Amino acid sequence: MKEHAYFDNSATTAVAKEVLDEMLPFFTGSYGNPGSIHSMGDEAAKAVMTARKRTASALNCRPSEIIFTSGGTESDNLALIGAAMRSGKRKIITSAIEHSAVLEACRFLGTLGYETVLLPADGKGRVTVNNLTDLIDNDTAVVSVMTANNEIGTIQPIAELAKTAHEHGALFHTDAVQAFTRTDINVVRDNVDLLSISGHKIHGPKGIGALYVKNGVNISPMLFGGGQERGMRPSTENVPGMAGLGKASELAMATMKGDVKRMEGMRDKIINEILSIRGAYLNGPAENRLCSNAHFGFDGIKGKDLVLRLSKMNVMASTASACSAGSTEPSHVMTAIGRSAGEALSSLRISLSRYTTDREVDLLLDAVPDAVRSLRTRM
Amino acid sequence: MKEHAYFDNSATTAVAKEVLDEMLPFFTGSYGNPGSIHSMGDEAAKAVMTARKRTASALNCRPSEIIFTSGGTESDNLALIGAAMRSGKRKIITSAIEHSAVLEACRFLGTLGYETVLLPADGKGRVTVNNLTDLIDNDTAVVSVMTANNEIGTIQPIAELAKTAHEHGALFHTDAVQAFTRTDINVVRDNVDLLSISGHKIHGPKGIGALYVKNGVNISPMLFGGGQERGMRPSTENVPGMAGLGKASELAMATMKGDVKRMEGMRDKIINEILSIRGAYLNGPAENRLCSNAHFGFDGIKGKDLVLRLSKMNVMASTASACSAGSTEPSHVMTAIGRSAGEALSSLRISLSRYTTDREVDLLLDAVPDAVRSLRTRM
Repeated sequence: MKEHAYFDNSATTAVAKEVLDEMLPFFTGSYGNPGSIHSMGDEAAKAVMTARKRTASALNCRPSEIIFTSGGTESDNLALIGAAMRSGKRKIITSAIEHSAVLEACRFLGTLGYETVLLPADGKGRVTVNNLTDLIDNDTAVVSVMTANNEIGTIQPIAELAKTAHEHGALFHTDAVQAFTRTDINVVRDNVDLLSISGHKIHGPKGIGALYVKNGVNISPMLFGGGQERGMRPSTENVPGMAGLGKASELAMATMKGDVKRMEGMRDKIINEILSIRGAYLNGPAENRLCSNAHFGFDGIKGKDLVLRLSKMNVMASTASACSAGSTEPSHVMTAIGRSAGEALSSLRISLSRYTTDREVDLLLDAVPDAVRSLRTRM
Repeated sequence: MKEHAYFDNSATTAVAKEVLDEMLPFFTGSYGNPGSIHSMGDEAAKAVMTARKRTASALNCRPSEIIFTSGGTESDNLALIGAAMRSGKRKIITSAIEHSAVLEACRFLGTLGYETVLLPADGKGRVTVNNLTDLIDNDTAVVSVMTANNEIGTIQPIAELAKTAHEHGALFHTDAVQAFTRTDINVVRDNVDLLSISGHKIHGPKGIGALYVKNGVNISPMLFGGGQERGMRPSTENVPGMAGLGKASELAMATMKGDVKRMEGMRDKIINEILSIRGAYLNGPAENRLCSNAHFGFDGIKGKDLVLRLSKMNVMASTASACSAGSTEPSHVMTAIGRSAGEALSSLRISLSRYTTDREVDLLLDAVPDAVRSLRTRM
């Protein structure tokens, strides 16, 4: 492969070598079904338990509070639909800038008669406790606000929002898919009831995720079959996937503090240099911003054109989330924070990982001004 | 690892070397998100398309008729719940010997007001068209009968059942998780509307499956989020998993005819020799039986004790399905075909794969009589 610079880590990350090494034995050697009672089944069941302990440890919860799922979307869906259906209440509160896995789950709940109330976000993508206090009532089943936004990197006041939710008898869920291993997550300290994570955003494999469900919190399952995951998520356990998520969690936590600091430094360097380009502006906050996220607009340039131009220069970036990358509609996050459709469509999202190198940052900072200049010349 | 004989292939199979080789590039090298518009996204999207074509080819359907899921359970759930919810009708017909992924989906639909009618099975596990004709009416949304039973190997008359379903305006679904690559499946010839398969039962990876949805058949999704799988199954695509399922499908089809014949020979040899043990009897049919399945009862012996004893002799087998292996309840399949609870609990399921060796069969046929004898002596 040609040398390339990968700045689309919010879309997906490379599986870490240590993670793949952890997974490999479970494909062709220790391939048993954890439900089988023979020794190969036992071996697989032990691997699942190790994975569960490692994942739980990274969130500061108990292994029994982890439900493995197929990914972030399923985790978000299970949290919201499972909480609403179990609650007997009719209202869900979430924010206008959530991932589509949350917003579309709410839309589905709407077809079943549930009401969704959207918290506004300010110009930097911040959701406030005051807004939640105004909108919440005792018929609210669950409040869901993401820990950090996937497009513009805004970090939300999770602990305060959870406290307000609980004061009104509602559960609190947070989509921590982007924040996990990049902010200090602690479900006990923040008193969160439900929290979603995904493997492939943290150098684990695709097709695996988890939902933290606080001990004592009851939600309805969304899949039905055998008794796996204590009946909350039946299906033959994805042993290599679980092993991968567990290892990826452990690996990330071991060096998180230093990694976050280094990513913050790179992020700030990227923001400073790119803002020196004529007509460039930053989207999202200057403070309380995800260490791995930088997000820009460029006057008179389409983000899609910029991403395609950068790709030809072997620099991988994105406009909005990969889930909507094919769309020509402006991002709902950008419009919710008050950007015009034109501004929204001129977006460039740069997302880092702990494996991002200085060399990659140099390639990026060489490529972006060139790409912007050449697109402007063409017009 | 010590030499062992693996006869639990209906619970799960080893990933084939060729399948793992196909998957590996998508973990650490070509790890892009298929939704991303840059070149690494394109590369991942191409891998998904190749996987879709290979999987479709094995079922004789179009690539656009394949929805990738997280496994057999999700495929079965999506088929039944998706079909029922979309239909406007209130009745589901299935058989008494289906996998729990089908039966529990029906139980969930019951909580929403749907009625489930169970087709009986005869003493060999056979479901008949006559029974379906008696029970079906125009308020039937979907008829679901598995292609081959996962415990006792009975192959069902799918084409005839589908024809009867269609005569009453119902959709026809079949759980082909056990049958795929072991019987001749052809969704066009059999006129099936919905068909479930799973990766890890065919030497592909765990955590991936697919649902065939016939072009023009509309079902409701069960997951909500981005637009992946044309909105029918949103979530970042599990690229290595899909690549693995596609390769496993292609690989199996290439040698299926010979593999089935060889497995039938091994199966018949196993049946003949084990039936010479005093007090041993066969469960399931002598004809129209899955090539990979043999299922026995032994007078006065608990299947669980036998499986654990065999495991100590490095022979891996099972009592019923792995999904219920921890259970002390008699199998619902065994009771549905008229076996007593005692008979059901004395079950030994032997399941082959195309990689099963003659040496493994010899180990099995040495071990079973010894294990039975020693358990009887102990009593």
